[in-house]
Amino acid sequence: MSTTSSAAINRDAPVAIHAQISEGIRSRIASGEWPAHYRLKSEPELAQDLGVSRGTLRRALTTLIQEGLLRQVRGRGTFVTSTTIEPAIAQRLSTLSEDFANQGIVTTTTVLECSLTDPPRPIAALLDVPAGGSVLKLVRLRSTDRGPVALLFNYVRTDLAPGIEGVDFTTASLFGTLEGAYGLKIDAARRTFSAQAAEADVAAQLNLETGSPVQYLQQVTYLADDRPVEYSDVWIHSGRLQVTSLLSRR
Amino acid sequence: MSTTSSAAINRDAPVAIHAQISEGIRSRIASGEWPAHYRLKSEPELAQDLGVSRGTLRRALTTLIQEGLLRQVRGRGTFVTSTTIEPAIAQRLSTLSEDFANQGIVTTTTVLECSLTDPPRPIAALLDVPAGGSVLKLVRLRSTDRGPVALLFNYVRTDLAPGIEGVDFTTASLFGTLEGAYGLKIDAARRTFSAQAAEADVAAQLNLETGSPVQYLQQVTYLADDRPVEYSDVWIHSGRLQVTSLLSRR
Repeated sequence: MSTTSSAAINRDAPVAIHAQISEGIRSRIASGEWPAHYRLKSEPELAQDLGVSRGTLRRALTTLIQEGLLRQVRGRGTFVTSTTIEPAIAQRLSTLSEDFANQGIVTTTTVLECSLTDPPRPIAALLDVPAGGSVLKLVRLRSTDRGPVALLFNYVRTDLAPGIEGVDFTTASLFGTLEGAYGLKIDAARRTFSAQAAEADVAAQLNLETGSPVQYLQQVTYLADDRPVEYSDVWIHSGRLQVTSLLSRR
Repeated sequence: MSTTSSAAINRDAPVAIHAQISEGIRSRIASGEWPAHYRLKSEPELAQDLGVSRGTLRRALTTLIQEGLLRQVRGRGTFVTSTTIEPAIAQRLSTLSEDFANQGIVTTTTVLECSLTDPPRPIAALLDVPAGGSVLKLVRLRSTDRGPVALLFNYVRTDLAPGIEGVDFTTASLFGTLEGAYGLKIDAARRTFSAQAAEADVAAQLNLETGSPVQYLQQVTYLADDRPVEYSDVWIHSGRLQVTSLLSRR
């Protein structure tokens, strides 16, 4: 970018040059001029543009990496960090909790309901259980230090996981329990994404106004023998969490 | 489902039995009792439940398949069809037009703008072009016979595709042009999905009320040599098109 010019550096100022560079980059990120995922020029190019040594530049970059504004990817360069959480749940059959753990994001889980229930008919049909049957209904709210990010309703076949209503899902993960404690082989899922207007109960849990747009995810999970084991409705706070896919053409 | 009982069949009625069965299934689908992606019982089981021959059942199913309400997947069974279009753009680096073509969905494209422009700064940064440079801005509306489904804003580097502003994108696809006419090797993309409230111009194009929830997709596409070639903002009418991923755990 031609805007990264040495004109921004004031060699007579009481502020150290590396700090001036950090501050210049910080304001470009804040203004949106350098958006999330923007790749900075290579260090030699950037140092030359700024008229500073590579050592000075690296000191400025290190500060910003420590602040979490930049991240370096081996062999690819230095990028502006995204300010929203970006799980890859559209692309891999990982769960939100697994994606959070992989990205080092600390989440807390509040269990709002964990009980046996007669599921709504369309859900019974997708789970291939008879009407009037009983399945686990698990309602959880996941939050980060910025607030709630996702509200999850899961319906789980109890014939495949008897006694699962006794598990403490404040700490246990659902897939972890199904695979670990019950030895089930989760194999595949269909996930559908759409934008919805938040209904009052969803909005209240996610700290949004009723009617705000929320990312809705519907999922049916299947075992290796093709039996459906779990159905879920998930509402995601798009301002705090955006679903990302890194895709290859070939 | 225990609700699929032979009680629904009236052997004294003037309506043929296969037509009664089709109508019974049709109303289960319409009521949501059998939702999209619900897998019907196997033909022998279903025929037994209904107290009819497999030939009669198959005639009823064939009618519903021809109507598009059911679809058969070799080796997996018979499923209720989704009433929304379900592209796999979160999972594969295919384009909407490729997914539509694969699913046999006829779309029309209206080109609202196709001109050279100085891109907004964040887009220039993501495309790695200097400020004040000129890129192709392509604005298209894709519609099916049900109405508009997606509004696409693409920004394309013209140094990589000189003269691209002269292409007629009413019929040509963007990736097809970049790969075919310009011989570029599109390799990878980052796609981010979120729910947004439709702004007035987006809402007007998609026949929605301003503020309605829309599925927003942001994309940066890269060539095999890692240079960004294209940036896009896409707004999707969630009532008509839902993004689907079929995922494997292992």
